[in-house]
Amino acid sequence: MTEILRASASACSNIAFIKYWGKQDFDLNVPLNDSLSMNLSAAVTTTTVEWDSSLSQDEIYLDGERILDGRGVRVSRFLDRIREQWYRMSARVASVNSFPAGTGVASSASGFAALATAAIGAFHEGLPDEVEMTRWARRGSGSACRSIQAGFVEWTAGSEDQSSFSRQFCPQDHWDLCDLIVLVSRKSKAISSSDGHRLAIAHPFMEARQEVLPARILALKGALANRDFRTFGELVEHEALEVQAIMMSGRPAALYMQPETLRVIHGLRRWRNEDGLPVYFTLDAGPNVHVLCEGREADQVLERLQQLVPGVEILVNRPGPAATLHQNHLL
Amino acid sequence: MTEILRASASACSNIAFIKYWGKQDFDLNVPLNDSLSMNLSAAVTTTTVEWDSSLSQDEIYLDGERILDGRGVRVSRFLDRIREQWYRMSARVASVNSFPAGTGVASSASGFAALATAAIGAFHEGLPDEVEMTRWARRGSGSACRSIQAGFVEWTAGSEDQSSFSRQFCPQDHWDLCDLIVLVSRKSKAISSSDGHRLAIAHPFMEARQEVLPARILALKGALANRDFRTFGELVEHEALEVQAIMMSGRPAALYMQPETLRVIHGLRRWRNEDGLPVYFTLDAGPNVHVLCEGREADQVLERLQQLVPGVEILVNRPGPAATLHQNHLL
Repeated sequence: MTEILRASASACSNIAFIKYWGKQDFDLNVPLNDSLSMNLSAAVTTTTVEWDSSLSQDEIYLDGERILDGRGVRVSRFLDRIREQWYRMSARVASVNSFPAGTGVASSASGFAALATAAIGAFHEGLPDEVEMTRWARRGSGSACRSIQAGFVEWTAGSEDQSSFSRQFCPQDHWDLCDLIVLVSRKSKAISSSDGHRLAIAHPFMEARQEVLPARILALKGALANRDFRTFGELVEHEALEVQAIMMSGRPAALYMQPETLRVIHGLRRWRNEDGLPVYFTLDAGPNVHVLCEGREADQVLERLQQLVPGVEILVNRPGPAATLHQNHLL
Repeated sequence: MTEILRASASACSNIAFIKYWGKQDFDLNVPLNDSLSMNLSAAVTTTTVEWDSSLSQDEIYLDGERILDGRGVRVSRFLDRIREQWYRMSARVASVNSFPAGTGVASSASGFAALATAAIGAFHEGLPDEVEMTRWARRGSGSACRSIQAGFVEWTAGSEDQSSFSRQFCPQDHWDLCDLIVLVSRKSKAISSSDGHRLAIAHPFMEARQEVLPARILALKGALANRDFRTFGELVEHEALEVQAIMMSGRPAALYMQPETLRVIHGLRRWRNEDGLPVYFTLDAGPNVHVLCEGREADQVLERLQQLVPGVEILVNRPGPAATLHQNHLL
């Protein structure tokens, strides 16, 4: 008799204000340091998992197409972890992103948060508690850890699998913070994030970074709790430049910034210094600029960005919801 | 009776392959670390000094105009040091640059090397020895230290005034190395080099930088001695990105790179990786890109750069000569 267990889930990607860069454990994605992020309301992955006892191997579909490359292998390796714990069936997995594929917005955070939720939700009477779910997501992709809970989320680095998990720091409606992602380039990166994490370990500046981070995280939490946008922005921008600095001064150099990245950065620093517009930025391991402002400035900032880099796509995000199970099955 | 003592000198600017960033002594410009540079044949300052006992105060002329701002004060403060040692007369100083003013090519190195040579040459029977002259130039502007001798020059950081000086590492004709300076921007910098040196002292990454530098300098000297362009280029590029990394991750951030800076950098990395063209870059505390290649590739590199950033001025340099006294007086 064929047994089929099915569930669907959606999860947001997230942007880190304090970054995850460098790992203690490369298999389980235990990071070097704590990090802090906001879920991105406009960058959502929806995934359906169908555990099917009649399948001889996993079938993975992304945006409607069967995936047979390394991305599929990564999904199967994650499903293996779940199979070790529960049933030993193969699965049919379908996944779609709300944002255009290959835009340079990391879909691994939203992807593995949705996958973990759907895959475990399919054969679990109610989900395990949220903290346990962040551990599962983390094993798939480190930053996915922070996409399980809503709003603003803190990931405690910990020292091994059990002690490395996320918790909500502030709920979704705590602060109307906007992240306007300027999609500068869709080209794949010369140095992957995985390789970047490895390079970080050997980087001579990483030890000093670990020493300054606890005070920075504490200051950032204060600014976030108080909705003190200027203090928040100064800290986030400094953190972003520090991580880019480490990336580009490694060997080999990971020079993620493109000309347009700097055009946006210099532009918004000019608006801030000359016009007093409260706007800051952060970056990820890529050329896209995450432009941060409060909701009341969002329209003005969007308009200025459209004039500064005409034709470049911009994704407007607010604090996003938690990963959730639902009935809108893709399979 | 009026006494007049006059001399003229010319000196090249220089580009550092290992950078001078951070000082032990801010008054005497004693640096944190050793550095290594090449004189720039196309970036020359010529200066005439006329010590005149009838003058009540210094008169400073730059490119034909009387200077009454901070630049003049800096020249007079340097002349004060010489007056302490020798005669106590005021001076008339005229200085011209072979390269357009305000191009973002540091003229303080060539400027203070020429000034020291002319000012001391005017009342010294033959100049003091070269090493002593590098100490004098250094007191005016740190990097001027490396513009006294010809070709490729090493500045030993030392620990105080007496032990901080330069020596030639390789003569001018040792290697036909080209530095094509792409003059990306002529705008004045938001954070001056002097402020940058101060920020460096407080930067959490500087200690780790000091630890890795001795091995890097040794490796670079080996590559330079052997004319091993690829090893040389890899080391120089890494050093340049490391110093930019420290600049941009300081508080406040010194973000000297402009969009065009990255356009040139990504361009030449593409030529190198895709076409095998041996070309590397370095940067200073500014947006201009110093594109490095061997003489046999210079024409091809120049042509590619002109196509990559049309209309942008490019200054073609080869290893330059020593600072020298001559009779082409400007006064």
